[in-house]
Amino acid sequence: MDIDAILKRIDDHLDESVARLFALLKIPSISTDPAYDEACRNAAHWLREDLAALGFLAEVRDTEGKPMVLGFPNEVAANDKPHVLFYGHYDVQPVDPLDLWDADPFEPRLVSREDGSQMIVARGACDDKGQLMTFIEAMRAILAVEGRLPVPVTVLIEGEEESGSPSLPGFLAKSASEIRADAALVCDTSMWDAKTPAIALSLRGLVGDEIFIRAADRDLHSGVFGGAARNPNHVLAKILADLHDDTGKVMIPGFYDGVGEPAPATLANWDGLGMSPERFLSPIGLSQPAGEEGRTVLEMVWSRPTCEVNGMIGGYTGRGFKTVIPGEASAKISFRLVGDQDPDKLRKNFREFVKARVPADCSVTFKAHGNGPALRVDEEWPMLKKGAAALAAEWGTETAMVGMGGSIPIVHDFKHKLGMDTLMIGFALEDDNVHSPNEKFDLKCFHKGIRSWARVLAAL
Amino acid sequence: MDIDAILKRIDDHLDESVARLFALLKIPSISTDPAYDEACRNAAHWLREDLAALGFLAEVRDTEGKPMVLGFPNEVAANDKPHVLFYGHYDVQPVDPLDLWDADPFEPRLVSREDGSQMIVARGACDDKGQLMTFIEAMRAILAVEGRLPVPVTVLIEGEEESGSPSLPGFLAKSASEIRADAALVCDTSMWDAKTPAIALSLRGLVGDEIFIRAADRDLHSGVFGGAARNPNHVLAKILADLHDDTGKVMIPGFYDGVGEPAPATLANWDGLGMSPERFLSPIGLSQPAGEEGRTVLEMVWSRPTCEVNGMIGGYTGRGFKTVIPGEASAKISFRLVGDQDPDKLRKNFREFVKARVPADCSVTFKAHGNGPALRVDEEWPMLKKGAAALAAEWGTETAMVGMGGSIPIVHDFKHKLGMDTLMIGFALEDDNVHSPNEKFDLKCFHKGIRSWARVLAAL
Repeated sequence: MDIDAILKRIDDHLDESVARLFALLKIPSISTDPAYDEACRNAAHWLREDLAALGFLAEVRDTEGKPMVLGFPNEVAANDKPHVLFYGHYDVQPVDPLDLWDADPFEPRLVSREDGSQMIVARGACDDKGQLMTFIEAMRAILAVEGRLPVPVTVLIEGEEESGSPSLPGFLAKSASEIRADAALVCDTSMWDAKTPAIALSLRGLVGDEIFIRAADRDLHSGVFGGAARNPNHVLAKILADLHDDTGKVMIPGFYDGVGEPAPATLANWDGLGMSPERFLSPIGLSQPAGEEGRTVLEMVWSRPTCEVNGMIGGYTGRGFKTVIPGEASAKISFRLVGDQDPDKLRKNFREFVKARVPADCSVTFKAHGNGPALRVDEEWPMLKKGAAALAAEWGTETAMVGMGGSIPIVHDFKHKLGMDTLMIGFALEDDNVHSPNEKFDLKCFHKGIRSWARVLAAL
Repeated sequence: MDIDAILKRIDDHLDESVARLFALLKIPSISTDPAYDEACRNAAHWLREDLAALGFLAEVRDTEGKPMVLGFPNEVAANDKPHVLFYGHYDVQPVDPLDLWDADPFEPRLVSREDGSQMIVARGACDDKGQLMTFIEAMRAILAVEGRLPVPVTVLIEGEEESGSPSLPGFLAKSASEIRADAALVCDTSMWDAKTPAIALSLRGLVGDEIFIRAADRDLHSGVFGGAARNPNHVLAKILADLHDDTGKVMIPGFYDGVGEPAPATLANWDGLGMSPERFLSPIGLSQPAGEEGRTVLEMVWSRPTCEVNGMIGGYTGRGFKTVIPGEASAKISFRLVGDQDPDKLRKNFREFVKARVPADCSVTFKAHGNGPALRVDEEWPMLKKGAAALAAEWGTETAMVGMGGSIPIVHDFKHKLGMDTLMIGFALEDDNVHSPNEKFDLKCFHKGIRSWARVLAAL
């Protein structure tokens, strides 16, 4: 492998790589809203064609939900080389609130900053289209220079990650033998900071649940009924307020079962990373950590479980005022899991907690979203060490071995259903506005991300 | 006064009265939303023309907000007869949620029920257009038969009652000498039940406030930041949950100052009305009174103050799921006042209560809506007794002397700024869906309401 020629190829053709990413970014592949079903399918087909152009046996395979994109190696795998499965997702988050975007979220732009650096701005620029294209463009450059990849690669790109991947379990069960490899590669995580690459050793799990509190059978005039009729806003507020005590502890019975603690060596490693509440929170305009008393900020986001109200609504919320007692109030809540917390038990305990707080003449219904436990990677894994070395060579600094606050349920499925560990390497930055308006991906991260994957593949 | 001829006239011309009401109902005079400013002006002009047709010196008078409609008597008042001021409002509530209406809220319809009775369905059918037209149509019939009204009448119809009447105090201060009369008449209240008329002896006051909790300076990814970053949904839920204890008591310091208790005779009168929690709540699908422990349902809605969350919103509330920690959460809250509770002190205490519960790195802003204290009418007032007798003659049963759960701040202004007591007579029913979708006004209430006012005017 002529790594220098490959890297030069990447540098020389960066504009074309960006153009290909832009074409994918233009497609509004929002998976949480059926109005964008066709766009999701278009994104899947775009990727299939790109993989086919690289020589993969590529197909769009339907599921009960959004289709999967599959790319199989066009040759028999040599037995002495590890066969890897690359995973990404072509679906993106919704864009709400649209009025906070500086421009159309699906018109990707290259924006220059004062220091001359550039960033790609669009929904999905980072999560996950920019990131997955770093891997695809790395393969493209290797194929252009060497004619073949250093190891057999299977590609799997799904379309429901932002919606909790409902079709994935069924797909994996059905297609395990086709996609099983020796290890998985995922590019959906972050740098430690703009200069320091990272490999993730752990991911938090995710459980989402929606609750609907119904009181009266209609909206009521608050003069006529106020004081006697139950207000579901009050019922819901009390439920949500009861979820945490004043020390930040989650009050759902059994919530902390299976949580565990990181190894002392890991905690020491994290303490050495120089994070503080100020450093973490001041970029977003806060200063007081909201997590459990006595925990460091990194524990709060990497090794402690959470319960967050993502959305709540009840009654009149439009312009002006309306003295109404609504008939219904609702909230969307998600939990980040760690250690061995059991997602099904957690959801069950949460629902019992809610039901116990609903008055006898009111009713509550639930709607489940997403369900995946936490995950850990063994620090002695050889592929981990090779990946860390390759990243260090590209970025000129030791690779940080971090926990991730977010969840990638597929990585857990890879481990427990297909027996594969996952190398989680990613180039996102803290200020990328992932899941927010004006999402961006630094051009430097895209460029050096492609170079990083080329080095990693060469090292395997 | 030939009351029988007047009543016959009303009966014979009911269809035309309904047609005139329909014409007024078609105008979407929503005062809380500036998008309907022109419609409000159109409604004002419609009423001016109708009053002019009845022989009033009628005008539309601009204010800083929505215009007032004024109708002055076209002759010098005779000194021995009481001069009355009739008040109503031409503005109506918003129609949200529109998808729950069976038809266009501003296309009034006559809907027949199984028992053959009919109801008028439209926004404003009851509150307040249907009600105010009962008085105007009564005057019309009297004028048609007698050629003159039995007492001098001034008419004042405002356009902001549903928005807290912001222009009214200034207007009253400026125009007091023009509109002051011996007593006021207001038709914006309810029957005791479908067979029993009522006169209101008390109204609850109203204070509205909106709170905005700001945490991070943007929406956040709940994986990356969850557990460390403050979630304003949680902050807001705790504030709202703290407003009441488990016995239904409002926990704002000083809230119950000035509340007082009704006279034992009044409480006995209420007990005799045969109300129960089941009777009050089962029509709206509830069974458990939500007010203060130990209070009857009528106390809860007539003589106890309330704190209600009319609307709350924070984070992602659209379709599907979004694992976000929002930057902001907000709520609209209103208070019903009784006795001598001071609206300004109440608002101040509420805001202190909120501020004390906002973390140091978050901020809260407020927006005031509406501000009016409670009111009582003297049970010995002669006009009250005449009105009660006139109603009893029309409906064939003793008039109930009730408290009202809702607020009509103008009635308080009439008392304290213009020295006038108000006769509050109305024909609304509990199931009229006031402030809700599919608002209606029974045709029988409209018809007998017109007849009732004719009798009342004749009795004065």
